[in-house]
Order: sequence, then C-alpha cells, then structure tokens
Amino acid sequence: MATDVEIAQQFTPKAINEISDKLGIATEHVHPYGRDVAKIDLDALSQPSQKQGKLILVSATTPTPSGEGKTTTTIGLGQAFTQLNESVCLALREPSLGPCLGMKGGATGGGYSQIMPGDKINLHFTGDFHAITSANNLLSAAIDNHIYQGNALSIDPRQIVWRRVMDMNDRSLRNIVLGLGGKMQGIPREGGFDITAASEVMAMLCLANNAADLKIRLDRTLIGYTYEGEPVHAKDLNITGAMMALLRDALQPNLVQSFEGTPTFVHGGPFANIAHGCNSVIATRMAMHHADWAITEAGFGFDLGAEKFFDIKCRIADLDPDAVVLVTTVRALKMHGGKDKSDLVDEDLSAVAKGLENLDKHIESVELFNKHPVVALNRFATDTDAEIALIKARCEEHGVSFAETTHHADGGKGAIELAKAVMASVEKSKPYQPLYDLDLTVVEKVRRVSRKMYGATDVAFSKQAEKDLKHVEQLGLTHLPICIAKAPSSLSDDPTLHGRPRDFEVTVSSIQINEGAGFLVVLTGNIMRMPGLPKKPAANDIKLLPSGVIEGLE
Amino acid sequence: MATDVEIAQQFTPKAINEISDKLGIATEHVHPYGRDVAKIDLDALSQPSQKQGKLILVSATTPTPSGEGKTTTTIGLGQAFTQLNESVCLALREPSLGPCLGMKGGATGGGYSQIMPGDKINLHFTGDFHAITSANNLLSAAIDNHIYQGNALSIDPRQIVWRRVMDMNDRSLRNIVLGLGGKMQGIPREGGFDITAASEVMAMLCLANNAADLKIRLDRTLIGYTYEGEPVHAKDLNITGAMMALLRDALQPNLVQSFEGTPTFVHGGPFANIAHGCNSVIATRMAMHHADWAITEAGFGFDLGAEKFFDIKCRIADLDPDAVVLVTTVRALKMHGGKDKSDLVDEDLSAVAKGLENLDKHIESVELFNKHPVVALNRFATDTDAEIALIKARCEEHGVSFAETTHHADGGKGAIELAKAVMASVEKSKPYQPLYDLDLTVVEKVRRVSRKMYGATDVAFSKQAEKDLKHVEQLGLTHLPICIAKAPSSLSDDPTLHGRPRDFEVTVSSIQINEGAGFLVVLTGNIMRMPGLPKKPAANDIKLLPSGVIEGLE
Repeated sequence: MATDVEIAQQFTPKAINEISDKLGIATEHVHPYGRDVAKIDLDALSQPSQKQGKLILVSATTPTPSGEGKTTTTIGLGQAFTQLNESVCLALREPSLGPCLGMKGGATGGGYSQIMPGDKINLHFTGDFHAITSANNLLSAAIDNHIYQGNALSIDPRQIVWRRVMDMNDRSLRNIVLGLGGKMQGIPREGGFDITAASEVMAMLCLANNAADLKIRLDRTLIGYTYEGEPVHAKDLNITGAMMALLRDALQPNLVQSFEGTPTFVHGGPFANIAHGCNSVIATRMAMHHADWAITEAGFGFDLGAEKFFDIKCRIADLDPDAVVLVTTVRALKMHGGKDKSDLVDEDLSAVAKGLENLDKHIESVELFNKHPVVALNRFATDTDAEIALIKARCEEHGVSFAETTHHADGGKGAIELAKAVMASVEKSKPYQPLYDLDLTVVEKVRRVSRKMYGATDVAFSKQAEKDLKHVEQLGLTHLPICIAKAPSSLSDDPTLHGRPRDFEVTVSSIQINEGAGFLVVLTGNIMRMPGLPKKPAANDIKLLPSGVIEGLE
Repeated sequence: MATDVEIAQQFTPKAINEISDKLGIATEHVHPYGRDVAKIDLDALSQPSQKQGKLILVSATTPTPSGEGKTTTTIGLGQAFTQLNESVCLALREPSLGPCLGMKGGATGGGYSQIMPGDKINLHFTGDFHAITSANNLLSAAIDNHIYQGNALSIDPRQIVWRRVMDMNDRSLRNIVLGLGGKMQGIPREGGFDITAASEVMAMLCLANNAADLKIRLDRTLIGYTYEGEPVHAKDLNITGAMMALLRDALQPNLVQSFEGTPTFVHGGPFANIAHGCNSVIATRMAMHHADWAITEAGFGFDLGAEKFFDIKCRIADLDPDAVVLVTTVRALKMHGGKDKSDLVDEDLSAVAKGLENLDKHIESVELFNKHPVVALNRFATDTDAEIALIKARCEEHGVSFAETTHHADGGKGAIELAKAVMASVEKSKPYQPLYDLDLTVVEKVRRVSRKMYGATDVAFSKQAEKDLKHVEQLGLTHLPICIAKAPSSLSDDPTLHGRPRDFEVTVSSIQINEGAGFLVVLTGNIMRMPGLPKKPAANDIKLLPSGVIEGLE
C-alpha cells in the first residue's frame, strides 16, 4: 500500500473558504493561514444557526502502543457522513510537534482517512502550541524575575510548582538547576521543562468558553507558595494580561478539511493523563454550531480520555454526547488475550476470545455514564472473518451495535455502516450521568473512578499524596473534579497488565493542583511530562524536498 | 500627541492582496496569514521583472538608549516615495517577542510612520521566530540524545558550543545545569539558553539565498568537539533535514504594509552585535525584484550594523546599495556632546556642536566604503532651529546632503525632502569597497575594522581570544569575514564613552566560530545573549481588550 504521504499527494485541498462556506461561516469570521487553513473568529458562535449539532464521541478500548486508529476512525466516520450528504464537522486535537520528531510520527489520521495539510498540521500549524509555550514561559520568567528583583511576594524558590515548557522531546531539560552564574544571573533553584502539551495553559485554553473565561483561569493559576506557605497565583504577578495577548489568536479554532472535504476543526492538544485529553471546548462548540453532526474524540482508551471527557469537559462546558463510538481492533484484543505486541498478525481465535474481556469492561464503562456505545471494529488487512465474528457476537450479547470499518483503505465509504449505526443509536440516547458528584471527598472521587472505571478493588494514597490532600483541603479545593494520570496501556495503573485486570489497588503517588484548569491531577505511577528522543528519532528520516514537500512525517 | 496604538487604530490595512498586486506578485505566490499579512513564495523571485531595484541602506549615528528612530525614518522614507508615486518596497527586520515583553516595547516604527498590524508583527507574527527556536532546539535535543544513547561520535559534553534558545527575556536560563535526575534523565552537563534572535539559525536563515543554501549552512554548523578535539558538525547528527522541514515556511519573507500603504517585507531579526543585524537576504532581494526603490536598514549605529551590512551581507549576497542614509538626532548629538541622557530636551548649542564629532566619524565611515551618505535629521518637537542649523552646516562642510524629517508627526509627507535627496544621491553612487579583504589574517581584519570604523589605536587579544584564534587556524577558517560584537552605545568597546572616543584599544575577549552563518564572532566586553526582565516589565502593562485590541504594546 502507498504511504500516508504518497496518498496525501493524490488529494488537493479545496480553498479553505469553500469549507467555511459549507459550514455557513460568514467570510468576515474566516482568517486564512495559507490557502488551506483558517482560524475562525469566536464571533461566529454568536451567529444564528439552524443546525442540530448532535455530538458524537469517539473513544476506544485499551490501545496497543501503536494505537487502534481512533483518530483515523473519527476522520473516516466524518467522511462517511459527508458521503451520505449529511451536514457534518469534525473536532480533533492538534498534534504536538515534539513527538512528531521523536517516536510517533504525525497525527493526522492515515490511509484514505486523513486531514490535510498534514505537513502543516503536524509541524507548526497556526502556531497555537508556540503561543502556549510563550505564555507559559512568560509566567516562568516573571516568577524568577520577581524573586530576582526583590521578591516582594516572598515566593519560596523551593516551592515553585510552575514549570517551563518546550514543544520538543528533550529529556535533558526534565530536571535542571537554573539561575546559575552569580549575582547578575538570577537566583539558583531547581526547575525543569515539560512538553508544551502538558502545560496547564494548554488545559486552560481547551476548557475555556471564551477569552474572559480564559483570563479568569489564568489569574487563579497556582504557581507556588510563599515562605509562609501561602499560595501564590499568576494574578499576583500582574502578567496574565500579557499572557492573554500572547494567546489571543491561539484561542481561535483552526479549520481544515479531510481528504473527502469534511470540515474539521483541529484545536488544542492536552494530554489524556495529566490533562483532560480532548480538543478545545470552543472547537467542539464550533463544530456543533455549524453542522448537524459534530464528531469528536478523547485521547487513549475510554477509561482515560472519555472518563475525563464526561466528568471534566462535559461538566464544565455543559455538553452531552448523543452517541458514543468505541473503536477496537482484532490486534488489540489479541494483545489483551495474552499475545505479545510483536505477534498480533496471525489468526488466533482463542486470544481474541480471551481479549474480549477488555471490550466487555469498556462497554460496561460506557453504560456507567448512561450511554450505549456503537462498537467500531477498525479492520486491518490481516484480520480474519472468524476473528471478527467473535467480536460481533460479543457485541450482540451486550445488546450494543457493531460495525466493521475499512476507512483506512477505503476512506468514508469504509465507514458508512458505522455512520448508519451511529445515526440509529442517537434515537435512544439519554442524558449522561457523571461518575461522581463534585461534593464527594477527593479520596472518594478517586476511589469511585478507580473501582468503576478501572475495576480496582480500592485505592491507596502514598505519604506524599496524603500531604498533597491536606494541601488541597487547606486551599478549599476539594470540590474540583479529578484528572487521574494513569498508564494508558492498561485498565490498571500497572502498564504491563493487559485484558481486564482484577484484584488490584490503584496507588496514588501525588496530587497536583491545577486551579486554573479547574481540576486536581491525581498521579499514579511515573507519568512522563517530558518525553525523550529514541535512539533513532523520527526526525532522522524527515527531509524537505526541493518541491517543498516534506518527506518522512508519518 | 496620540499614542502609537491610538494612531494605529486610525488606519485600516488594505487587503494584503492589494499590496502584493502593487508589487506585481502573482496570486499563486501569495500565502495569506490573516487578511493583512502574507508569506511570499521564493518562486516569485524567478518571475521576470521590469523594476530597477535600487537599494537604499538606512543607518544611523551612535544611538542613545532609546534609539534615534532609524526604523521610523526608514518607514517614513518609504512612505515619502509612495507619496511621490514611486515604485517602492521596504525590507525590515522582525521584532523579537522577548524584548517586546521586557524593556523595549514594539518595533514597528512610531507615530505616523508605522507598519501594521503592529500587534501581530510584535508578537508571534507568522511564527518565524518560533520555527527558528524549534529548529535550534531540535539540534540541541539531538546532541544530548546522541550522548545519552551511547555517544558514537564521542562528543565531549564539556565542549558543546551549541546552546538552546527561547524568544523570551529570561535571565534564569543563561546558565543552567541540565540532564539531572539520574540514569534515565540524560547526561548532566552545563548549558544555557540565548534569546532566539541570537541563534545562529537566525543568522543562517537571514544570509541564505535559498533553501539549498540554508541546508548547506545548517550542515556545516559547528556544534562542539569530540574528546579528541575534533570538530562535530550538525550534519553528523543527521538532523538537518528535519530542521529544514521546520524552517520551510520561515524562509518565505512576510509582506505587510505601512500606514500609507507602502509594501514592506519584514523578515528575519538577527542581532547587530553577535550577528550581522539586518533582515534576510531573501527579503532584500524580494524588495529589489518588485520595486524601483528598495529601502532597508541595519541595526544599531553605522559602525556596527552597516559595517556588517557591507562586509558580511553585501559580500555574501552580492549586493551593493545605491544610497546610504545616516539618521541622526539633536538628542543623540547632545549626548555625544557630554549631556546626560536624562537631560536632552532643552536647547544646548554647545553640546550639539561638541557632539557633531560623532556625526563626523560616521560620515567618514560611510566614505570608507566608497559611499556618500545623505544625513537625515529626525526632528523632535523640542529641537530648535538653531540646533538643527549647526548640524546642517556641518553636513555642508562635509559636502554631504542633509534633510530634516518630520515623518513621526507627518507620515510620508515629512520625509519627502529626504526622499528627493536620496534620489539625487543615487546619481553619484559608486561601487562599494569592503573594509578588508578576506585573505587577511583574523587579527588584521579585527585591527582594520577597529581602527577604521571605531577609531581605535590598536587591538588587544585576551588569552582566551588567542586560544580561539589557534582553533580558527586549525579548522582552516581564517578566510571568514568577522562579526565584531561591541557595545552599541559607543564607537569604542567601552559603552560609557560618547562622542568620538580616541586613544583607546579594542580588547577582544573571545572568538566564536559561526561556521554555518559563515563568520567569526569577535567578542569585545560582555555581550548579552539573553536579556533579563526589568523590575517592571513592559508585559505588566499589556492587556487584551474585549474588542481583541492589544493595549500596551508600544
């Protein structure tokens, strides 16, 4: 089969104004970035709309390291709606530049279900990540400068929780000592860099309803403590106005298109462990406002991304999906059935059958939110009919719809069965129920998500986590929703446990306060906030051809 | 008088296509970034052109800390050509985000001689600086990752000369220890960040004739030495293809307009001490290719920016200006006449008369390149006619043209006299002569610039500089032009000496090899490569208004 980049070269994007016209967005709200990308004014949300704005959430079973094609399925599904002449718009996350150059390659779908222009989207795109980097690091510079210039706020350099960020896989910056070199060069202290997707500014931008809301979030961001242990917020440094100036354009969602011309907002890219893992609220609203069908996704498996989609994003932004798609693959179920991830190609009915318990759990998890999923089997060329029959039968036992898709090879045509199943499922949709009430204790919230979503017997808190809990109580922030950072490769907090782990406890190592974003980050195990480059980085294969085409970005 | 931002709000930019049409650039080469900014394809340079492409260089006498309005004069002069119905195009540097948030405010001109949209140009603009930051830091990450992954090249972590960059005034990052935290977190070593404008990638991008040339420069960039003392270049890390991908769009010059609709390329922003201090070669060529008059500037005073313009940029890019403008002010000459910089408002004829020796030296300096300047007196409201008469008389003594300008208050109309003087001066223009031949020794090159340009008696080399010289010889790089980094506030290397210092020696502290850019950076004194924030940063006054207007960026 042709590579993604070769396939992409078969398609010529329409002028972006054709796409915005399709959505009925007035030209005055369209700011072109090149010929095939535009930013859309938030004012477009205030224009009257006749659209139904039904929201479809695409999630997945627990993925293998190479992912189960959730984004590709989302794009394929959108293209299927376009093929059916439905009014449809996608809302997706922006890829992070760092991983594109590191391990992962691009993140604009694959095969005949891609969004374009992939080379721009995967690299700088419209500069949103760079703007977030700048805003984050302006706050960092202001903190260290404040201490250097006399420290009127008595900020304790040992208790600064605000870290710098860079959109690069650079392990050497994880832990640094900065401010070295003597009296003129700052105040020495320990610090470090996270990758930009892990910046709380990213989470804030993605959860903000508008500019005023973002300003409020920036102001209340906790950046550290005084020597007396009092919290210090970004507002105290008088810098959030400039942060807003830096973020002005980044707050506008980016409009692009899929190969088959399906309009697609690509905006915001928070992690799905230490943040809530979905595109911006503004992009989701834009898609809903301008189409009958708005299709969005949540990162990693349902237990991570979709749980946060419901318990954080839907709660904050007053959203409620009309349908939930659960993407799974034969490969993933084989892995959950005990096969090694290097050995997922040959038919193995017993492994698939055993792995189905992972699917079972995710179906049950969807139902905990009062929703019924449509299971989408993302078919690979090596899958056998017998393997797929097993999965279909299990879905029938659960009484949930099932659809096989071949959107990777066939584009939208390969997801029409799925699109029809989704449309049918909307009829029966009921309002979602969150997994926990906000007035529960933090421990109880963590316990409930761990038991219900992950299947844990109970939760344990480390000494550090208990100290952190006290802090949360002292600051009066126990009412916040929780954002559990957990291994994505397992339902448990042990990345090596596949299938449907039972009889395990979730161990909370620490709790971080993201007061600006409006959630508590509950960390289990070692969660990486700054990836490193592998021995042979993807960047080694990237080239700019004389034609201007970028090779190797996949 | 109204503030710059208030004045800017009186002007509505034309659609950027109107501006590119004015330059005769085919639509297919115009990539809009919003409605009032576009990037222009390098292919536009291959289209036939009927334009004369006369090049005008704007430089200045030794500036006060607040600058003498060189950029404002350049813009005003461009507007005057527009008023005279001449075909004209400006080529200017891009402002750096860091200083805009720090001490300096924006850099898009002032009063009625501004380019717009100032809020975009001064902040992220089209992302060129961010792309340079990414390319620079990808190389850094690749270096540290190479060492971490086994160090096949035997790079000595103590001899890495390639630093990370950030477009932020952040003194705490000047000197850091990175790679801390144990075996999984990298290799501990000393390092640090410069501001993005100081990245050698910036200098390379600005000196490159095209993408292929930039690739050659990136490949030959010196990043450090092996344990055996052998040089290691960026090419050895197999990462310059990805750097090129990151820089693809940044290589295209950005087109904007002045208040009066004068087309303006704003592209690249290297420092004028540790780098050559002028906009990209590509932008200069674009302006020359598409207009009869192309007007550009060089940073700081003539001794720094213009010397490098001639000896580095003109030599590398085969350019030769047809006219040279020397901007001066009554305020600056008063300072050079001995007045304190806080006391430059009241009439003081004797101070002006005494300060004229600074102008004398710069006029002589222009003539050393076989050129004759037009002196532009940028008139401030507090200047008196008697003060100005002194300056005019001195120009007459030198036999050089003189024109008073009021472009700040009056826009292009205020620079028409200057425009006419410039047009007249072009008739007498002769080919420029560089200040030194490339086959001289490095010491001789430094001596010649120091004596002829700065008025020094001689040069002294520190022990470190002598060691560096040996290195340059060993690497066979003595043929490179030199880029002297010196205090901008004095003709000498002592920032406190005003007027026309005599009887001083220039002391070279060290020499850095910018093999990619293609010059040797000769450092005198303490040259700051990463500014810090002042006690009250400009960022404290920046606000995003609900209308979307950014306040405080001036």
